[in-house]
Amino acid sequence: MQIIAEPKKMQLLSEQLRREGKLLGFVPTMGALHEGHLRLIRKARREADVVIVSIFVNPIQFNDPEDLAKYPRTFNEDVYKLEMEGVQILFAPTAEQMYPPGFSTFVEVQNLDRYMEGAHRPGHFRGVTTVVLKLFNITKPHFAVFGLKDAQQYYIVKRMVEDLNLDVEMVPHETVREPDGLAMSSRNRLLSPESRRQATALYRALKLGKEMIFSGERDPWKVKDEMRRFLKREAPLGEIDYVEIASIPDLQPVSEIEGKILLALAVKFPEARLIDNFILLPEDRLVWNERID
Amino acid sequence: MQIIAEPKKMQLLSEQLRREGKLLGFVPTMGALHEGHLRLIRKARREADVVIVSIFVNPIQFNDPEDLAKYPRTFNEDVYKLEMEGVQILFAPTAEQMYPPGFSTFVEVQNLDRYMEGAHRPGHFRGVTTVVLKLFNITKPHFAVFGLKDAQQYYIVKRMVEDLNLDVEMVPHETVREPDGLAMSSRNRLLSPESRRQATALYRALKLGKEMIFSGERDPWKVKDEMRRFLKREAPLGEIDYVEIASIPDLQPVSEIEGKILLALAVKFPEARLIDNFILLPEDRLVWNERID
Repeated sequence: MQIIAEPKKMQLLSEQLRREGKLLGFVPTMGALHEGHLRLIRKARREADVVIVSIFVNPIQFNDPEDLAKYPRTFNEDVYKLEMEGVQILFAPTAEQMYPPGFSTFVEVQNLDRYMEGAHRPGHFRGVTTVVLKLFNITKPHFAVFGLKDAQQYYIVKRMVEDLNLDVEMVPHETVREPDGLAMSSRNRLLSPESRRQATALYRALKLGKEMIFSGERDPWKVKDEMRRFLKREAPLGEIDYVEIASIPDLQPVSEIEGKILLALAVKFPEARLIDNFILLPEDRLVWNERID
Repeated sequence: MQIIAEPKKMQLLSEQLRREGKLLGFVPTMGALHEGHLRLIRKARREADVVIVSIFVNPIQFNDPEDLAKYPRTFNEDVYKLEMEGVQILFAPTAEQMYPPGFSTFVEVQNLDRYMEGAHRPGHFRGVTTVVLKLFNITKPHFAVFGLKDAQQYYIVKRMVEDLNLDVEMVPHETVREPDGLAMSSRNRLLSPESRRQATALYRALKLGKEMIFSGERDPWKVKDEMRRFLKREAPLGEIDYVEIASIPDLQPVSEIEGKILLALAVKFPEARLIDNFILLPEDRLVWNERID
């Protein structure tokens, strides 16, 4: 595996590979790789001639300096895992290379960032869209794979790709879960044993909400109230940031449950803040992101 | 000349040309083409295998609806001129194709837009950077030529290109002038005969400022005051928007004249608002954008 830190060098290599007719797949990560990341990478491997993975803990998407400081960093293990997966190129720049002195340009997707993560992490999505656009320009992929645990991020980046006419296909991948339902996340390893036990409540609350909706409930407030009550009981160590039911793809809270919707929640445990979601199409009793396998 | 309106079709063609190893030069315009535009196009023709010109009057960069409504549109003449210059591709989308319903993404370059045009036309540069980024993504050029009459725009777009790692070389072109010194602009044709006569005062005020600086004056306020007095006397029909001396490339007003500086001004005539500038390196007695040829 080739490891590249210099943006210009990465860009030249990608341009050369494109001219050779190679199909480039890209998986952006912040490292601390787990099985969830590896599934995205395997999906990219099946479709692409060359897979590029990036590892970059993007400072401008962290609104909380403490969260940035304690974000897990496991570079050597990550490199080993990527080698095992047959990844051809790792792009791992420094913050100074991505944001040299005088850096002044930011990309914003309006409206879609108004609720959920956008409301609770001011500036977060601006940091995400800016770094993803930079990474796309540097790695020049034909397609990029994004995990749906960050569903709001996926729809915001997809909106940016369409609005800015980026020539990159957005490929979503279902949330990968632990056997007890907890969505895989680099932050899970920060949890105390008791927080880890209670963290399964996020998944179970989503299942509860789904059951209510599939049983015919169309009032979002009733569903959200029930889920909140459940979380308070089952995860007393956690503080609820939000439980939301939003339209897809415009991510606005709904006043009546219909069409494709995002059922999303965020809970702050003492050691880490966790998020999870289901995507539902109630009329067809379809659900994404629920599966454990 | 191939005329393309559909962004996706333009993008596919550019991608194909790149894969064939063609060098693509791009000149973005808002139409109403004059000799200034044609010089940029000739520069692109000398360097590129294929020259792409865009004509798009970008609504989101107009802060004044009246300015947008009366902006000159001369599409048939423009096509004829481009054919004469041997341009291979004209990209001319509609506003609906560039900004379909739900459009939500904007690019902003901070700080550099704080003075001069940025201060007097709120939202203007956000509209410019957003459309230029879209046009670059659609036309995929190796280089793009920009006229230095819009010097602030040039430095802002250049900053965006660097910050977002765009793989496009920025090529500046000196301001092209009428024989009496007036900078060429699509808006000049809107001027009454008397405004047109007085409009030469912009160029002459810049020459006056340059002479003071080259004679050793290092106090920007003295230079700006003298230029303002000159403009009031020589262009009584005009209302001064600003006379500014700013650092390059960060475009902040200077408190002492040194290094590379931008001497810029804007004057509102009853029929149109005009801008002009010189770029100076006083220590070496160098000046850009002054020449008449």
